[in-house]
Amino acid sequence: MKVGILGGGQLARMLALAGHPLDIACLVVDPSPDACAGSVSEHIVTGYDDVDALARLVDETSVITYEFENVALSSVERLAARVPVHPGWRALATARDRVLEKGMFDALGIPTATYLPVSSRADLSAAIEKCGLPSILKTRTEGYDGKGQASVNSVDDALPAWRSLGERPAILESRVSFERELSVIAVRGRDGNVRVYPLAENTHMDGILRLSVARPEDPMHGAARGYVERLMHALDYVGVVALELFVDGDQLLANEFAPRVHNSGHWTIEGAVTSQFENHLRAVTGLPLGSTEALGPAAMLNLIGAVPERRDVLRVPSAHLHLYGKTPRPGRKVGHITVRADDQGTLRARVDALSGLAGVWPGIGL
Amino acid sequence: MKVGILGGGQLARMLALAGHPLDIACLVVDPSPDACAGSVSEHIVTGYDDVDALARLVDETSVITYEFENVALSSVERLAARVPVHPGWRALATARDRVLEKGMFDALGIPTATYLPVSSRADLSAAIEKCGLPSILKTRTEGYDGKGQASVNSVDDALPAWRSLGERPAILESRVSFERELSVIAVRGRDGNVRVYPLAENTHMDGILRLSVARPEDPMHGAARGYVERLMHALDYVGVVALELFVDGDQLLANEFAPRVHNSGHWTIEGAVTSQFENHLRAVTGLPLGSTEALGPAAMLNLIGAVPERRDVLRVPSAHLHLYGKTPRPGRKVGHITVRADDQGTLRARVDALSGLAGVWPGIGL
Repeated sequence: MKVGILGGGQLARMLALAGHPLDIACLVVDPSPDACAGSVSEHIVTGYDDVDALARLVDETSVITYEFENVALSSVERLAARVPVHPGWRALATARDRVLEKGMFDALGIPTATYLPVSSRADLSAAIEKCGLPSILKTRTEGYDGKGQASVNSVDDALPAWRSLGERPAILESRVSFERELSVIAVRGRDGNVRVYPLAENTHMDGILRLSVARPEDPMHGAARGYVERLMHALDYVGVVALELFVDGDQLLANEFAPRVHNSGHWTIEGAVTSQFENHLRAVTGLPLGSTEALGPAAMLNLIGAVPERRDVLRVPSAHLHLYGKTPRPGRKVGHITVRADDQGTLRARVDALSGLAGVWPGIGL
Repeated sequence: MKVGILGGGQLARMLALAGHPLDIACLVVDPSPDACAGSVSEHIVTGYDDVDALARLVDETSVITYEFENVALSSVERLAARVPVHPGWRALATARDRVLEKGMFDALGIPTATYLPVSSRADLSAAIEKCGLPSILKTRTEGYDGKGQASVNSVDDALPAWRSLGERPAILESRVSFERELSVIAVRGRDGNVRVYPLAENTHMDGILRLSVARPEDPMHGAARGYVERLMHALDYVGVVALELFVDGDQLLANEFAPRVHNSGHWTIEGAVTSQFENHLRAVTGLPLGSTEALGPAAMLNLIGAVPERRDVLRVPSAHLHLYGKTPRPGRKVGHITVRADDQGTLRARVDALSGLAGVWPGIGL
């Protein structure tokens, strides 16, 4: 069985590594010859709009998936006419566009921050009126890791913010003064079965995720679970999904969802019975889903821009290193560390011991 | 960092898979173009005595290891003069030869069955006198999975047994009427640090391992730990070792040791904090060792000769499938299943559910 993957970065790499023991081979398409999945799977070096490459993908694979949501919809449509693509076109189209995404949340009764689409300068003042200040202006498509966003703290900020985003179709959202940022990762099989991982509590620096801590006992789990199940069923979703949420008092507000395995789920590699990568492959190939239970307290720290000394990381009990084989550059995700413990206090101490190595301050995410 | 591996079978494959997240690339040498490690690592298709291939191995790797002990000693010696080979030449030479191996156990005060080397017909009767009946005649070298052995139940069996082994240098051993067969897997770092995994209790059919169950609470753990530590320190051992033991009343008798990762340690992939594969790589590359603690009750079932329906295996909670990408043939190890549970009763039920799929009878190894 061969699975095609659009994109050959670290997510595809970890999918491919999860595939080998299941005798599932992956075939990745990525325009970069250095794409880091290429060392653990077959790799077609070409653009996503290359008709020949897509034809080979169709011929050789029995299902196609993707590791990022900014792949061209037209390519996915063309593929989906010939071979199953999971998650499906509708999930992808919805996740790619913040206005469609928020509209889906509304339709499903999933609370969000107040928002209004902004397509022109003229829309800006109506949007500020509705959302209040401070707000955030975001491009409708192609934003990630804090890119494609601008703060609007006063009416005077609005026009410069709009210009800084290239006057592209956007959405204004009220800034939520959230206490915590959570994500819920779930997986749905071809047969409609759903498994939901424990919540992860996430800490960002400069818009980039740095730490995720699994929260199996989180009081918000039930609500988050309900939302993500509703979303998956509505989209007839197949595969792993990540739904990002803000905690505002006793309310959860949905921020966005990613139709793929997600950075905040990397703790599942050593921290859950079945990793998100294995479960995504099981789902898209029609195999039974694995348990999403946590094996105990677990966390994940991202390595951004630099790889620490391996021995320093591996000296910390239960720490596991996941390097992506990428050349370090400032701001680039080059790997992550997972760590487990038998109790939260020990986990906390281990995360603190690792925080310096991962370039974050001790006590982050407490 | 690149690690050379002599042999490209499933053990090399699982070492290579464990290496990728650590950014440790493996380069395997194996004469078979179909060697199953070849799909997850670089692969030089050549014999182990190919001087050019060995030169490339020396040039490109910073340490060399092996996945089977029947590699020619002369090749290993030649390599070891140029680049570190772990486990070292002495461990390999000892493990390859049952007489040297038993002599090492004797020297270290590790009990064994009664034995005597047999180099000629004339030795046979003295050996039977010493070992008693029934006994087993084994070739000194190159035995595995029950091959190279013949039972000697009466004096009349002796000569036919000796002939059936090609009159090669052999050893006669008393047959131990053991209650249980155990193995202890341990790892020693370059710095002499040692970590020992919980004991595994092993069940064979037709000389081939079928089931290993981790026994973290086994009363024999202390004695086994002492023996394997003594062995590793005496050999200045670096890497993972497996010591096979018989339980005879309240005594442990050492049977043999394998200077490599071992089939009875496959449960560690999902069942221990650090797998034997990752720990072997950590040891031979000089990285700190990982915890060998079990994550709870765990077991491993071998898949021999046939791969069951993947969906049937994955439907069993906590079951993980590890296929080797090999063409099934009778008697061939084509994969294994690991399974975990929170308590022994649940583990037992899961092993029973899997036993039919793995071609063994329910209740095996109870």
